[in-house]
Amino acid sequence: MIKAGIIGSTGYAGQELVRILLGHKDAEIVWYGSRSYVDEAYSSVYGNMFEIVDAACMDDNLDELCKKADVIFTATPQGYLAGVINENILENAKVIDLSADFRLKDTDVYEKWYKIDHKAKQYIDEAVYGLCELNRESIKGARLVANPGCYTTTSILSLYPLVREHMVDTDTIVIDAKSGTSGAGRSAKLANLYCEVNESIKAYGVTTHRHTPEIEEQLGYAFLAGNTSKDLSTVGQECISDKNAGGNPLLINFTPHLVPMNRGILATCYAKLNDKYTYDDVKAVYDKYYKNEQFIRVLNKGVMPETRWVEGSNYVDINFVIDERTGRIVVCGALDNMVKGAAGQAVQNMNLIFGLPENEGLLMPPVFP
Amino acid sequence: MIKAGIIGSTGYAGQELVRILLGHKDAEIVWYGSRSYVDEAYSSVYGNMFEIVDAACMDDNLDELCKKADVIFTATPQGYLAGVINENILENAKVIDLSADFRLKDTDVYEKWYKIDHKAKQYIDEAVYGLCELNRESIKGARLVANPGCYTTTSILSLYPLVREHMVDTDTIVIDAKSGTSGAGRSAKLANLYCEVNESIKAYGVTTHRHTPEIEEQLGYAFLAGNTSKDLSTVGQECISDKNAGGNPLLINFTPHLVPMNRGILATCYAKLNDKYTYDDVKAVYDKYYKNEQFIRVLNKGVMPETRWVEGSNYVDINFVIDERTGRIVVCGALDNMVKGAAGQAVQNMNLIFGLPENEGLLMPPVFP
Amino acid sequence: MIKAGIIGSTGYAGQELVRILLGHKDAEIVWYGSRSYVDEAYSSVYGNMFEIVDAACMDDNLDELCKKADVIFTATPQGYLAGVINENILENAKVIDLSADFRLKDTDVYEKWYKIDHKAKQYIDEAVYGLCELNRESIKGARLVANPGCYTTTSILSLYPLVREHMVDTDTIVIDAKSGTSGAGRSAKLANLYCEVNESIKAYGVTTHRHTPEIEEQLGYAFLAGNTSKDLSTVGQECISDKNAGGNPLLINFTPHLVPMNRGILATCYAKLNDKYTYDDVKAVYDKYYKNEQFIRVLNKGVMPETRWVEGSNYVDINFVIDERTGRIVVCGALDNMVKGAAGQAVQNMNLIFGLPENEGLLMPPVFP
Amino acid sequence: MIKAGIIGSTGYAGQELVRILLGHKDAEIVWYGSRSYVDEAYSSVYGNMFEIVDAACMDDNLDELCKKADVIFTATPQGYLAGVINENILENAKVIDLSADFRLKDTDVYEKWYKIDHKAKQYIDEAVYGLCELNRESIKGARLVANPGCYTTTSILSLYPLVREHMVDTDTIVIDAKSGTSGAGRSAKLANLYCEVNESIKAYGVTTHRHTPEIEEQLGYAFLAGNTSKDLSTVGQECISDKNAGGNPLLINFTPHLVPMNRGILATCYAKLNDKYTYDDVKAVYDKYYKNEQFIRVLNKGVMPETRWVEGSNYVDINFVIDERTGRIVVCGALDNMVKGAAGQAVQNMNLIFGLPENEGLLMPPVFP
Repeated sequence: MIKAGIIGSTGYAGQELVRILLGHKDAEIVWYGSRSYVDEAYSSVYGNMFEIVDAACMDDNLDELCKKADVIFTATPQGYLAGVINENILENAKVIDLSADFRLKDTDVYEKWYKIDHKAKQYIDEAVYGLCELNRESIKGARLVANPGCYTTTSILSLYPLVREHMVDTDTIVIDAKSGTSGAGRSAKLANLYCEVNESIKAYGVTTHRHTPEIEEQLGYAFLAGNTSKDLSTVGQECISDKNAGGNPLLINFTPHLVPMNRGILATCYAKLNDKYTYDDVKAVYDKYYKNEQFIRVLNKGVMPETRWVEGSNYVDINFVIDERTGRIVVCGALDNMVKGAAGQAVQNMNLIFGLPENEGLLMPPVFP
Repeated sequence: MIKAGIIGSTGYAGQELVRILLGHKDAEIVWYGSRSYVDEAYSSVYGNMFEIVDAACMDDNLDELCKKADVIFTATPQGYLAGVINENILENAKVIDLSADFRLKDTDVYEKWYKIDHKAKQYIDEAVYGLCELNRESIKGARLVANPGCYTTTSILSLYPLVREHMVDTDTIVIDAKSGTSGAGRSAKLANLYCEVNESIKAYGVTTHRHTPEIEEQLGYAFLAGNTSKDLSTVGQECISDKNAGGNPLLINFTPHLVPMNRGILATCYAKLNDKYTYDDVKAVYDKYYKNEQFIRVLNKGVMPETRWVEGSNYVDINFVIDERTGRIVVCGALDNMVKGAAGQAVQNMNLIFGLPENEGLLMPPVFP
Repeated sequence: MIKAGIIGSTGYAGQELVRILLGHKDAEIVWYGSRSYVDEAYSSVYGNMFEIVDAACMDDNLDELCKKADVIFTATPQGYLAGVINENILENAKVIDLSADFRLKDTDVYEKWYKIDHKAKQYIDEAVYGLCELNRESIKGARLVANPGCYTTTSILSLYPLVREHMVDTDTIVIDAKSGTSGAGRSAKLANLYCEVNESIKAYGVTTHRHTPEIEEQLGYAFLAGNTSKDLSTVGQECISDKNAGGNPLLINFTPHLVPMNRGILATCYAKLNDKYTYDDVKAVYDKYYKNEQFIRVLNKGVMPETRWVEGSNYVDINFVIDERTGRIVVCGALDNMVKGAAGQAVQNMNLIFGLPENEGLLMPPVFP
Repeated sequence: MIKAGIIGSTGYAGQELVRILLGHKDAEIVWYGSRSYVDEAYSSVYGNMFEIVDAACMDDNLDELCKKADVIFTATPQGYLAGVINENILENAKVIDLSADFRLKDTDVYEKWYKIDHKAKQYIDEAVYGLCELNRESIKGARLVANPGCYTTTSILSLYPLVREHMVDTDTIVIDAKSGTSGAGRSAKLANLYCEVNESIKAYGVTTHRHTPEIEEQLGYAFLAGNTSKDLSTVGQECISDKNAGGNPLLINFTPHLVPMNRGILATCYAKLNDKYTYDDVKAVYDKYYKNEQFIRVLNKGVMPETRWVEGSNYVDINFVIDERTGRIVVCGALDNMVKGAAGQAVQNMNLIFGLPENEGLLMPPVFP
């Protein structure tokens, strides 16, 4: 039985981790960390867990927790993990970080977009970017996994085959993403009140959203990997060790939108095709990379992803349309930001690290309606 | 492995049965019945099931299906099952009916409220009302189970201990219930369009909703059972065999409301207390009946049920407040109409019939947010 | 041109006052009061008012404001107005208070339910309860109007004819009310976050909601008024001057619920009829009181109120069903909590005070969908 | 008093026309046309109009209606008006068509995208495209106005200054649009049921939506008009008369999305800038075209449009961000699809035709929340 501790278990992503781990037959939760609710019953913070979780929330203390847990999930604000991580922790437990602290290999980029100093640069090389389908082998041996962002997972998986196969002009990529409101977290902000979000849609963080460089970095690696058999993590390492070889080969426009719904992300991606590819040409490439991926569903021709069809599950639904008139391809990807976009992918990473079947605890079908 | 066939698998309740049975380790679905989508891929009707369910929808034919299935779930319109049921079917398979055909012991009442002739009165005696917590033993031996309505389950479970213990004046019961829109089914009616339901609440079927007599009948049995150890089903049989002994000892006001949300039912129940009971008095009675019921959660003092805390799960949350000023008790019950109010309870009935652990396949925690 | 000042103009009710007064041809807003946003452009707080309202928010100062304004609306927390009101203010301007400070004639009741000391008891006698349809004449001469609560307006208007005509047993009244989320105000509380409210319904303040005594007091006056021609305000005065003569002749159960929608209140009211009244009997009584009330719409037989049909307007929709089986009547009332339940009624009060047509600025049809 | 008849008054757009015209002091509705509800009270179809509209629905008959009305609004399915329009009608009444029949000057394009034959090509030249801000003078003298589509109005107004001033590369335009569900109309389709739309977002009509050629045609005219003083309508006429001179100078990608809300459209538009323009450069151009347009609000720097801020009103909110990293500009436009996207603009056109103040009946502030 894998002992799991959760730092930040009272945020939305932390609570989703709880929900998923409760259904995982080889893991048990040993620590419900929470700064805000120390000593309060977990089920008083999340009423759904009444009579299911008996534990009280505990103070966050990674140095202690690491001795009791085999794996620690940190569902914490940016900067927290980088501020406390050390060798003691990593020697005692695997760490899967749901924050952005170790996602970006280029700390200059991190500090520029996040506007905080990175306090644990010595672990950036070691950290593996936990996009399971693209970095499976590297994740298996990792001590520290940087679980990708929700927008990022959707965007990268949607475009990855096209970028890796150099089928699109990387200078023309536009990603217009839409997210449910749980992505904004559980803090009491006026902008997230029911009446402020309901019956409205808006773009936010236009040209400045922090998931932008994460998408660019990973798609950049995909582009550089090209027709080699390298995974993205390996390319990332090479770019770091030889900065000149890397650099960022692509810049994108990424625009997130807030949608009046609880869960779900839809990314609508646009790019110019490098050639007059047919549907079959493109389908073949998506099949090449995703045919054996059980959590990636490339839909039937003509069926576009809808977030309702993935809610509560670890699936990513993807499909595309080629516009012969404009020479562009439109790719849509949909996932549940709480599952494949956060807690589900974190558990998928745990499964990889501990040598379990990758889908363990993750086979729940989407809940509809 | 229990072989399960579903008639009406493309309605909302039918689809929820599919979702739950897919996670049940001792059952497999052998037949996806559907009148409207014969030969179409099930996953083209419900996109969430893409790459999960490969089967196509099949024509409904209970006489054939009963030979292939150990249990048949009928999630069909009123009158369907009564029109086709026969001894051949019941000898070959257990039948769990999610419609109202066999819920009411009094067929006069059925015909009056449903305005259709009952075509299988010979099976009414045999049918067991499948409210698991109240009729557990009778269900175990049943061939035909009448799965209760969603409003009904919420209302009965909320008031049952008070009525059975004769703590409330049965002439003063008012049940004001609120339901998500999935309860209205998946047919294309103008009244159920997004823009007609969204941003509004209304009462409907005021004084005429068909779940009224079902609640009255079962609470009536509870009242008659009183301090005996009989289950409701047994009392029901007695009432039938001696009409004079039964009659309906209580009449209620039941008012359903349509709420702009997908899932969930909240029943707010009012009744005059027969005495100056304290919180502890009443709590003791709820504990007496529900303490060992894992799917019934009587909440902590002061915490009232909210439908969000049961969504996607088989739980019923219940709590009450005594109003000393008016001498009334206010009891609230909440459940997910698709699960404990339909498909989950149906599976719970299946588990009872087949001697499986009652909670098998039903332990998923509520999904939030 | 009536000069209007608004204290608390940046709350939801305050903003709705702005919206309505902007369309009022005989009033202009001279002061946008706000504690939280002093010196900020009003349109930066409410983007809908961009290029419509140019003013900045000003500090609340009733003693100054009263010299610039003919009427002051206070859309402020409980206790605010009672803490500052004085003769200077009332001599200079009419005050229409949207808080509860002057709604209850019995200050013991006020202090018990609101748990704050009342600091201006000397003005309670003078204050007129601003339910326009019931206190029209008293309002016309008032200096200080207590604008009724949203739940209260719905509940009282729904039951008023029945209570005044002694057609129902006042000991059996149950009011089950449902409100959109704007009623909770614009403060940043976790419980009002989008993801906490959406896809859920709950009862709150069960047996303890502060609108309960307000409903009881006014319906009590209605009962006492009986077949006299007195308005409720007059009866209230009499009760105050002779406490023994008054007392509260009725106690009710009032249960509010939070509904995932922005606007709207639906009150479903239950009571035992004192006799076997027919539909026509009851209809005649509603017609007697409401036939000439343009903002009260008693719907056609069989059509029950829905909040969508009154959204954005000053209408109250009412209808009833008699349940012969139980001897109860079920009355539903629906209004927009922001308009007839707050700002619209406040403007209606202003019109009455200033001798304008009562409907001026209030004739906008409901907005649908 | 202008006498207005409405064909299709029981659709959502038709009903919004009713709502707006009821508040218009120089117009009265003389005919509530409806195929589906002939002889039924209008207020039984739309409960909000109870006691406001007394009329019953009448059969559609333009040849008769044109004698009773000064202006006819046709809120009808594609092909209807083209099938019945004739000289008798146009001689007797002005016609403002909310369908697409006369929006496209190129009937080949119409027949290709709409897949129906155009039956009144003789009136295409005469019809004026009713985007008021861009074709004001032409509209004033028109007999037949083609009221623009909702997506179209948002998209064109968002990009118009940039295209007309040749500031963007017209080969790089991507428009990602999001619409509330009222845009789908009031027909009972399974896809528009509450539970199918709620808690989900999807793209639809990817690369094939019929508003695409309309946007292309009008932005094409804008591009051709360039720094002349011509309005779009005039350029359109020139293109028609000399097909070679016209042709479509730009092709775009337009992707609509369905959002779980009633009203509102947000268009997020992307294009490569032709030069290193600053914020001030671009702002100057938007000011040049829109500074005096009262219904177009170019927001303050850094404030992006949200649909909630325009709901119920005739405003279009627009703003932009320049992305120096990618050389792209991101422009967002928001409006209420029922008002500026349909009925409001139709009334604005009516005002222009009849020489009334352009804003008459259209000054209602947005309703929030």
